[in-house]
Parts: sequence; structure tokens; C-alpha cells
Amino acid sequence: MPTRLSNYFLRTLREDPADAEVTSHRLLVRAGYIRRQAPGVFAWLPLGLRVKAKIERIVREEMENAGAHEVHFPALLPREPYEVTNRWTEYGEALFRLQDRKGSDYLLAPTHEEVFTLLVKDLYSSYKDLPLSIYQIQDKYRDEARPRAGLLRGREFTMKDAYSFDISDEGLDVSYQAQRDAYERIFTRLGLEYVIVKADAGAMGGSKSEEFLHPTPVGEDTFVRSAGGYAANVEAFETLAPEALPIEGQPAPIVFDSPNTPTILSLVDHVNDHQARTDRPWHAADTLKNVVLALTHPGGTRELVVVGMPGDRDVEMKRAEVAFAPAEVEAATESDFAKHPALVKGYIGPWSPEGPVLGEESTSGIRFLVDPRVVDGTAWVTGANLHEKHVLSLVAGRDFTADGVVDIADVRAGDPAPDGSGPVELARGMEIGHVFQLGRKYAEALGLKVLDENGKLATVTMGSYGIGITRILAIIAELHNDDKGLIWPAAVAPFDVHVVATGKDEAVFEAAERIVAELEGARYEVLYDDRPKVSPGVKFGDAELIGVPKIVIAGRGVADGVVEVWDRATGERTQVPLDGVVAALQG
Amino acid sequence: MPTRLSNYFLRTLREDPADAEVTSHRLLVRAGYIRRQAPGVFAWLPLGLRVKAKIERIVREEMENAGAHEVHFPALLPREPYEVTNRWTEYGEALFRLQDRKGSDYLLAPTHEEVFTLLVKDLYSSYKDLPLSIYQIQDKYRDEARPRAGLLRGREFTMKDAYSFDISDEGLDVSYQAQRDAYERIFTRLGLEYVIVKADAGAMGGSKSEEFLHPTPVGEDTFVRSAGGYAANVEAFETLAPEALPIEGQPAPIVFDSPNTPTILSLVDHVNDHQARTDRPWHAADTLKNVVLALTHPGGTRELVVVGMPGDRDVEMKRAEVAFAPAEVEAATESDFAKHPALVKGYIGPWSPEGPVLGEESTSGIRFLVDPRVVDGTAWVTGANLHEKHVLSLVAGRDFTADGVVDIADVRAGDPAPDGSGPVELARGMEIGHVFQLGRKYAEALGLKVLDENGKLATVTMGSYGIGITRILAIIAELHNDDKGLIWPAAVAPFDVHVVATGKDEAVFEAAERIVAELEGARYEVLYDDRPKVSPGVKFGDAELIGVPKIVIAGRGVADGVVEVWDRATGERTQVPLDGVVAALQG
Repeated sequence: MPTRLSNYFLRTLREDPADAEVTSHRLLVRAGYIRRQAPGVFAWLPLGLRVKAKIERIVREEMENAGAHEVHFPALLPREPYEVTNRWTEYGEALFRLQDRKGSDYLLAPTHEEVFTLLVKDLYSSYKDLPLSIYQIQDKYRDEARPRAGLLRGREFTMKDAYSFDISDEGLDVSYQAQRDAYERIFTRLGLEYVIVKADAGAMGGSKSEEFLHPTPVGEDTFVRSAGGYAANVEAFETLAPEALPIEGQPAPIVFDSPNTPTILSLVDHVNDHQARTDRPWHAADTLKNVVLALTHPGGTRELVVVGMPGDRDVEMKRAEVAFAPAEVEAATESDFAKHPALVKGYIGPWSPEGPVLGEESTSGIRFLVDPRVVDGTAWVTGANLHEKHVLSLVAGRDFTADGVVDIADVRAGDPAPDGSGPVELARGMEIGHVFQLGRKYAEALGLKVLDENGKLATVTMGSYGIGITRILAIIAELHNDDKGLIWPAAVAPFDVHVVATGKDEAVFEAAERIVAELEGARYEVLYDDRPKVSPGVKFGDAELIGVPKIVIAGRGVADGVVEVWDRATGERTQVPLDGVVAALQG
Repeated sequence: MPTRLSNYFLRTLREDPADAEVTSHRLLVRAGYIRRQAPGVFAWLPLGLRVKAKIERIVREEMENAGAHEVHFPALLPREPYEVTNRWTEYGEALFRLQDRKGSDYLLAPTHEEVFTLLVKDLYSSYKDLPLSIYQIQDKYRDEARPRAGLLRGREFTMKDAYSFDISDEGLDVSYQAQRDAYERIFTRLGLEYVIVKADAGAMGGSKSEEFLHPTPVGEDTFVRSAGGYAANVEAFETLAPEALPIEGQPAPIVFDSPNTPTILSLVDHVNDHQARTDRPWHAADTLKNVVLALTHPGGTRELVVVGMPGDRDVEMKRAEVAFAPAEVEAATESDFAKHPALVKGYIGPWSPEGPVLGEESTSGIRFLVDPRVVDGTAWVTGANLHEKHVLSLVAGRDFTADGVVDIADVRAGDPAPDGSGPVELARGMEIGHVFQLGRKYAEALGLKVLDENGKLATVTMGSYGIGITRILAIIAELHNDDKGLIWPAAVAPFDVHVVATGKDEAVFEAAERIVAELEGARYEVLYDDRPKVSPGVKFGDAELIGVPKIVIAGRGVADGVVEVWDRATGERTQVPLDGVVAALQG
């Protein structure tokens, strides 16, 4: 049966919704695909549900091809498993929490690692049961601080989340690769260009992770890539450490007065004026900037950390958050400085004429970490920890030693890729999928062990693999539209063909009915605009807004035995004979 | 691709789950269909998900046939619309409530009348847009006080809920009938015997309502039916009021001493001993029992109400709850009596020698309602409102008048059906569907009006129609099983055929593979037990537990060119030639 617009539950809107910040949100609401219920929470109208079902079908088919079995978990889950992994707390305000009538704690699951782990623990006991990959397509919840951009970042959203279970690391590699391959097939079928970038496993606590990004200038994520094939998101980029330099023969540190130079800029000016080099001017990169950060560890302890990095770099907070997780990180406050008089603000450095100032072994006891570029033998201009004094020729590995290396400086175009594949460029993209090697974190926390070949209990290693179904729908809408409306790719279009009958001539409607029947006979899904008293202009406008890829117009031409086939994407209109519509679409 | 048990996510269990109270719960868990996550909250394993999908497909097809369009609402909804209809409060503890990070109130929807109403208000504006029927298949939440019986009464459950919108009462009748017809088709396709009974619209606030019950002695609902075709659930049964009797000529009331007769039983004994009738003994039905109930109205006001009914009847609380809704009802407590000294406990009656005692116009002001059988001219033995005194020949309509009629006495086999179709019998059933004519309650509360033919705003009239998908799955499992396991009807079986290869002979597995391929070629869905090192006994046991309707066994017979086709329901086993399996199944 064709879907007839005369009685379909659809109203297109002339006005953009007031709260729409992005094109996909604006068009999906105007064209009658979705409707807002609360911030970040949407109802799906018939057209939207059809597109969603098509994306789900593609994902299901490729999950099956990857050997994954479908299950379905509740959204409402008890607190306990999330307590064990500490995510009940770590998720912070993003977790929807509630209590039942007995006062037991529950959550609306943002992701299901814990309960998948417990399910396998519940049912499986031997290495012979593995490998196993299971997945679900399910509605998830995340209480975003600022739900925005329509479906791109909702508070209720549909995800495909898959989980793999293996006895060995090699097994995990195979399961991971199978999901990764499935993702490539899914995005290819969806017509979504993608880049696979190295990602930081971050809060998921895993060992290896990659993101699928759709590259687009309007993307909210930044990633780096080299012409030689390296790609990583900014959080996962690893700065290439240069070779260490010889220490021997380098001049001794020289402390000098540097009045009123609390910033890198003023310091560089000062040394160029008063301590000029003969070979070239001093650059900011010659200075060592010592940034004081305050970490709040789970449990609440606050710790100051000083990070030394070349003076031309800044801390990139997203990278710092990942590097210091699960601690929270922020710039040190005045009150932090007040509690640590050893830090002479504006003139901080790891060394002073009286000895080491920073580091766990120093008098201050403050942890001192350095950027990977601060290798042994590099000489720096930096603070002498005395008011309005700096020091020249302070050599790493001779005059100071760090407690460790931390890679949280900003990444710039031209930085070398860590794999030697050349300088990187920065680009923007939208996350469309994420694959994680979780390793044994969840299995250990929740006690998922099976008997191995030798009859000994071995902890299972896991992977987790997510695709945001509703997010992908929005991204496709974001990419495929023009000023008239949506333009769906055939694979996910709500219908294959939109037949429009215009005018009042009964013969036109009869011809349209015959064409609709023929198309359905040829297994096309047809939306038929049979509305009797609606003007051709309104019908065409609706067709353009709704965005079915092929539109067939039956109008005055019917008298001459022809209709028009209109390609929504190219705008091209072709006259075809009444009985040649199926052939024209197939051709 | 066939589903191979060697790598399917399935474990059958030998032991019944400790918390399983009913057969369906026990078998669905043991056979690997579902797994408990929290009280009344389940995860769906691959087998269970397949059965659920088949039920959903049947429901979707019949909803389409009924002209309903599918939409999908969130489970997480804002408080406001439910506040407007007062259901935020009325739902009481059964509603899961939560707050987001900003402190806004949300609920997990138990049913979606409010937001469907608002959606149509949002998009539609004219009578020309109507009628409209829309539905969803969606996960709902109800915080049951005692979640039990597995999927039969869960706290998270999948429902099909449809809503109709019409401009006129006649339109509503048509939409209601279309859904009712769809339900008949659905239950027929599911092989579920059903009785359609008149129901009370109750808390949904509607004007007409029917329940689809599956009649079974283990059902939790009681309904009544007559041989003449009347059927109603107990809450909706209407007691047939007898004809009024002439008052003229009846003897005047006689007050008599009745020491120590606070119960109907002691009163009947007393009058038979001291006030004997000449024609027959006194019966309990000759006495008027005055039951004191306490109502708590929304808002908290507590009101005492006295209900007079024949002394052989008791108040049926389920009927009283419906009759007095939205007030809550319970028996009056000692403290209630203490506050109303006008009520002489054990000797309460509407009249005393000093005048009327009960009724809004009486000295006590206590509302007095009577059973429909207490018609004018009936004479009663009842309390005289004096300690250890009763009265004879108290005639309704002469000596006392009630404030109204209330039909809350228990229903008994032999009571006359209200439509004159003869005496009723009582039976038990399980609710499998419910259709409501909501009328204009929700549209009025939420302001859903459209322009009518005359250009005037008219309030829309609505219907609501529910089927519990997961509940029905459980009911089918409850009805179709034996001591070995489940026995699915073909329409909802997870697979059409379960092929079992037994032994170690490679030729057997090769033959099984060929049969599986042939079956799939003939579009059968096949579960193939290809496990290499599992005994035939275990395989047969699993096949019986899982309950696929047809089992094909490839074993030693393969050498002689035969396999066995085993009918799970009848237990019948038939030998068929290797290349005759498809023919045998089709035959």
C-alpha cells in the first residue's frame, strides 16, 4: 500500500523552530521528521521513524556480518554494577539518577559495559565459549549540561553499542578488527566519508581506541593528520620527542635581573634587549614556561602540579583532562598560590641558585612534569624562582630533572607526526563512531573470569563499539540539504519515490495511481501526494523540503502521455512516457 | 545465514530461577530468552528478541491495516503535561519520577495520552485533518509495588499504544471500532483465544472501555459472562435493579430489642428466633447492611460514606475503588467512628425513632448511598442506630431515602446480566488488550481544539488503545509449554525449524548443512545445532526447552538416506528422506 499524503501524519512547517541552532535540526523539524518534547528529547514522527529504521537495518546487517548477536538491555538499571566500576560517581551530573518506591538507586544508562559484562559472567564459564560479540540498538540517556544542535547532542538518543569478549589479547585484536571493518562497511553504505583517527580511551579506561570522524569544517572535533597517513584526534596526538643533546660543554646557568617580566612575551623582549644572542634573536620556544595546574583527585584531594613546556606553547585543556583523568584539572587559583609561597608567580622555574625548587624530591615537594620536547641537554631561559629574576642556560638533565613527562601542549599544523610520516595538518570532523579496546578493566572490576585451556581462571578481555544512530541520522541530514530542504541519499531515504499529482483533472490522479501501483509492483517504496485541494506550488515545496531523492510529477502532461521525473539532488527534470517511469528510475 | 548454536549467544539452564513464580518466567529464563536485571526489569537475549520482534511485526501490520501511523515518543518526559491532567499526582508511587541536573521534574512515562494530545495540538488545526490514528511500540515504566510473575507484570515493559483523534462522537465510534477489529485480528494471528468484556474506563477518565481477556483459570482478572453473550469485568458489571414495589399498605417500622447482634449472622438468628416470619425463615438478604467507608479525596480530605446493601453481600473493594475514583477508599477505622458518635457501631441504620440518621440532609450529614437492589418499596431489617436495637419493615422511599446509588457489592454466579441475557457465571482471564473511548477529557485539559465545519473551535474526542507486547509474549509462553519446555506457535516462534545434527559422523553434519541450506532456500528461518561435542541427549533437551515447533534430526539414519522430523507440540516423529525435508514441512 502506498503512503498517501492525504491521510499521512505529516505537517510541514513554514517557520524554523526557534531553538534550532543547526541545519539538520531546523530541517528535520520543519519537514515533519521529529518534534521536540523537552531539551534534548525528541518524538519521532512517521517520516523520521522510517529513516531511523533504515539506518538501523544497515547497522544490524553489518553487525550480523561481523558475527555479533543482538540482545536488548533495559534503560533503567540498578546502581550496584556502576558503583563497582565507580562510574556511578565518575559520570557526575551527566547521569540521570532516580529512586524507586523502595528508595533503591537506579540510573538511566548512558552506556552498558557493566551489565554486558555481568550478563556474560552470568552465562559463560569457559574459554570455549569465546570469542563472543553481542550488541544492542537501544535508547540511551545522558544529562548534557547544554543539550543543543537537535539530535546531534541529545539527552535521549539511540545507540548501537556492541561488546566483544575474548580470552586473549590477540583474540581482542581480531574482534576489534571485525567491528572496525563493519564500521567501514556501514559508513560506506550510508555514504558517509570518514577518517579513522587514533583516540584516547579516556574515561572508558581502555588500552586502545579509534574514532571514526566525518571530516567537515563545521565539525565539533579537531583532529590532526599527516600526508603520510597518520591520523589522531587532538587528545590522542603524541608529541614527537627530539633526540637528547650532549650536556657536556654547555655553559653554566646564569641568573640575571629581569624586572617586570612576568610573561613570556616580556621575557623574550627583555633577553633580546639585554642578553642578545649572536646567531639569531631569542624566541618564545627558547623559554621554559612553567604552568601551575590544580588537580582534584577522586575523593577530593587537591594537588598542585607544575608543567614545564616551551614558552610558545599553551596547555590544551582537552588534552590535559585526558592526561590527568580521573583527576579533574584546572588552572591554579590565587588561593592555591597563597598556600604555596615557594612558587614565585611570574618567575617560577625548576631551579634557583639555592637548589631545586620543583619536583617531589625538592623542598616544595610539588610535582614537576615536562613536555616531551624538554629532553636531556636542552637549555632554557626560565624563571629563577626569585622575584624579577630569570636564569639562562638552564640545562635539562644537568640543572633540573622532572618527575615525568606529560603531553598536554597544544598541537599545531607543522608539528611532526609521531610515526615519522611528516608534518601534520589540523582538520575538523564530527564523531560518527568509536571503537575501544577496553582490555580487562570491566572484567576485573566485575569478576568476569572463565576457565582457560589449562583449567585455570582467566580474566576476559573486552572491547566496546558504539555508533550513535540518531546522531548519524542528523549528520546525514546536516550534509545532504539545500536551501529548499533535505536531500536524502537513497540508502536511508524515507521513501524511494515521491509521486505528486497536480491540478484537478481526474485523469491525472488516475494516471498517478497507476504509476504508484507500478512502482510498488517494482518494489519501490512510494510516498504519494494525492491531496486533492493543494496547489502544485505547495506540493512541490513539500517534496523539496521532505527530500525523497526521486520525485515523479503527474500534471498537465498526462494528457500528452508524459510525466516528469525530477531528481531532487541535481534538480534535473526529465519527461518520460506514462508507462516508462519504472524504466526511467532504473536506468 | 543460518544461526549456528556453536557460536550463538545462548545458554540453557538446568535450574529454575529462584525468583520465578510462574511458568513463563521460569521457562523463558531457563531456555535463554530473557535475563533479570532488577526486580521487574529484564534484558532480552537473542532468542527472546526474535519472538518479541515477531509479535511486534504482527501488531504493526494490523495497525497499518487499521490506518494507524507509527510514531515514537521518548520514555523520559517533562512533568508539565502530566501536571495539567493531574496524573503526575494521581499515579502515586507507581510513577518513576526524576530530576535533571537543573532540578526540572521528569517522569518515565507509564502511558502517553498527554504528549500524543499535545503533538496533535501542535500540528493539526482543522476538522479536515481528522480522523487520525497514531501509535507507537515503546518501552514503558511503572513502579509496581511488587513486580512479579516475570514479564507478566514488569516495571519496564514494551507496549503498543495507539491514540485516535476525531471531531465527533460518531467518528470516535468508527476509530474505536477500527482498533477493536485490529485487536481481534492480532489475537487471532497470535493464536490467543479472547473474550471482549465491558470494562470500566476508571483512571483513564473515559466514557467507554472494553478489555480483551484471555480466559484461563490461572488468570488474575475475574470477569462475568452470560450464556446470552454478556461479558464484563467485575469492576464494570452493572447490577440489575429490580422493579420498585408499592409502598402503600406496608406495615409501619417496628423497633425491637436485639441484644448482642452486631453482625448480620447474629441478627438473622435473632429475628428467626424472636420475630419469625410465617412464610419462610429470614435470610441475610432481608437485612440491610450499612457499611462505613472512608474516602480520601485528591487533596487529602477524608470523608465517611455509608453504603447500604443486602446483608448477604459484601463490598468488593476493586469495584469500590473504581466507583469512588479518584478518591481512595478503605474501611472506616476506629478513629473514624470515634469522630462520628452518631454512628452506633453494629447497629447502624438510615433511620431511628427520632428521624433520619444518615444522608446529607440528616443530622449526621454523612453521605448515604445504596446498592441498586435497594429500590423504593423494598422493606428491610436493619439497625435502629440505638445500641442493641434493630428495626423491622423499614421501607425504602418511605422511611429513608439515599443520596444516591452505588454498585460496589460483590458479583455472584447466578446474578442476572444487566442486558437481560440471563444469569452470569464468573470466570478468570488475563488481560491482553484494552481499548478506551477517552472522550474529551485529555483534549479539554490540554486545549486540543480544531476548527469545525462552521469555522468554530471544537474540542477533539480521543480514544486510547493498548497492547502489552512483552506481557503477551509471556502469556503465549504461559499457555504453550509442557514439562520439557516451551512450545511456540509458528506465528511467533523464534525460528521455524531447529535442525539437530547428532553423533560424530562427518557425513551427518554434511547432510545437516545441506538440509539447512535447502530450508533457508525455501525461506525457513533455521536454528542449526552444529555443536560438535555435545551429546544427542543434551541437544534434544535443549531443542525441547527452546520450543521451536519443528525439529529435524540428522543422525545415524543419514547413512540410510533418512532424517527425522519431530513435531514439538505433538511429539510425533516421522522419518523422511534426506531430500524430502522441505516437502515434509510444507505437507
